[in-house]
Amino acid sequence: MTMTRRDVGVAALTAAVAAVAAGGHTARAAEQKPVHDMSGMPASWTGHEQIAFLIYPQFTALDMVGPHYMLTSLMGAKVHVVAATRDPIHSDAGLIFTPSATFEDCPKDLDIICVPGGTTGTLAAMQDESTLRFLKDRGSRAKFVTSVCTGSLIIGAAGLLDGYKATSHWVAEPVLSVFGATPVHARIVKDRNRITAGGVTSGIDFGLYLLGMLRDRTYAETVQLMAQYAPEPPYDSGVPERASPEVKGMVDAMFTQFGPMAETIGRASFDKAKLL
Amino acid sequence: MTMTRRDVGVAALTAAVAAVAAGGHTARAAEQKPVHDMSGMPASWTGHEQIAFLIYPQFTALDMVGPHYMLTSLMGAKVHVVAATRDPIHSDAGLIFTPSATFEDCPKDLDIICVPGGTTGTLAAMQDESTLRFLKDRGSRAKFVTSVCTGSLIIGAAGLLDGYKATSHWVAEPVLSVFGATPVHARIVKDRNRITAGGVTSGIDFGLYLLGMLRDRTYAETVQLMAQYAPEPPYDSGVPERASPEVKGMVDAMFTQFGPMAETIGRASFDKAKLL
Repeated sequence: MTMTRRDVGVAALTAAVAAVAAGGHTARAAEQKPVHDMSGMPASWTGHEQIAFLIYPQFTALDMVGPHYMLTSLMGAKVHVVAATRDPIHSDAGLIFTPSATFEDCPKDLDIICVPGGTTGTLAAMQDESTLRFLKDRGSRAKFVTSVCTGSLIIGAAGLLDGYKATSHWVAEPVLSVFGATPVHARIVKDRNRITAGGVTSGIDFGLYLLGMLRDRTYAETVQLMAQYAPEPPYDSGVPERASPEVKGMVDAMFTQFGPMAETIGRASFDKAKLL
Repeated sequence: MTMTRRDVGVAALTAAVAAVAAGGHTARAAEQKPVHDMSGMPASWTGHEQIAFLIYPQFTALDMVGPHYMLTSLMGAKVHVVAATRDPIHSDAGLIFTPSATFEDCPKDLDIICVPGGTTGTLAAMQDESTLRFLKDRGSRAKFVTSVCTGSLIIGAAGLLDGYKATSHWVAEPVLSVFGATPVHARIVKDRNRITAGGVTSGIDFGLYLLGMLRDRTYAETVQLMAQYAPEPPYDSGVPERASPEVKGMVDAMFTQFGPMAETIGRASFDKAKLL
């Protein structure tokens, strides 16, 4: 029997859906016998990535859940949600998550490590020695070191952005320079194996971008269609250049304290992390 | 002292951020003494909404977490994550959430009830009597009955879309007619107090739309800027009209079974719910 590329894709992705149906708890298609013969499938469509999202108290859930949706669509990948312990973690908006792995039992060699952002919780994570030590260790070997939103301040504090171009939530971009990084105002910034995304919802574009990079365009487009990702924001105020002065002024005023605090804490943590 | 509208907004939203900092576990600004004098704030900027997201085994987390981000930015609102029990709930991609309320202790009178979608888990939820009974009860009094993605199949099964225009994940739109609804192919459909959103990522547009509806344009735009919601999808394949035939064919093939199953289950559940 000749399988066309399309048949192959159907079989592969149907298997992924079957894995969902069976309640796969890591990646959608992980640890699941395929229900179709996938022997003819392009090798490039199934991977063996080990992917870890770091979570911490008061992180912003959407920063993580957006790219988590995308990356759990990678056939063959294992996706871990990692924290210091397995105790439930409260997000800044009150969602309660149970980690699937700890700093101890998270795989040593990761393909992707991704750190989401937040506000106060992020400043605390930047100062936490075990977090910095974990990121320094896994980040030194990970194929891609990544972040969404102010998550870049945490990987920056761990010394992982020194000498790299990077981005963050637009409010926090200037802070990156204290970590030896060059701030770039963009939604996704890739510099060698560092990939950083802008604020919150940027994580969805970032996740889709990774799918195209790790598989191919057809794969990414299929997941985009499943996610019905054809955004129609009812307003056009998502970046400072397009927001009204009133709206821009409000967000600036809200974060007057955040920037200086992040710089002070960042500088101290960056120095401390070098010694860990 | 005269407060301009902008000063007022700053004070109000700064208080919201302060609430985050203090670790508010329901809405971002709930249960928190304001750190600024907000006496001059427009009454319309602070509400008292009771909002509930229903979650269930194998739901799609992004369907819920997108609008949850938006709605927890409503000052004064309380946002609940409700399930049959407080036992942890596994999403279809393996995220583990702890509900904040049960069907029993969820407030009786809700301003908004919102049901996220999924695939196999959604078919199971459509058949679950306690879920249907809960939705029938709260939905009969809620100011707005809403859904994201295939969540509309669950509220439809509970009889809450009978005689209404509604939408769903594009794959599932035709199924809505078994619930007496008129399917509409759109990202957000509002018919009187029913508001349904399309697949997965539509929930973010839906949440932002609700902010404008429940507060005002400036409020919604401020949250949009905080979320840096200026999407830049790296591909343009998010709706069937724009996907390539290859990509469209793959997703169609993946869901060949889902449509007929959802129709059969939906018809039976819709009839059963009438008697509950």
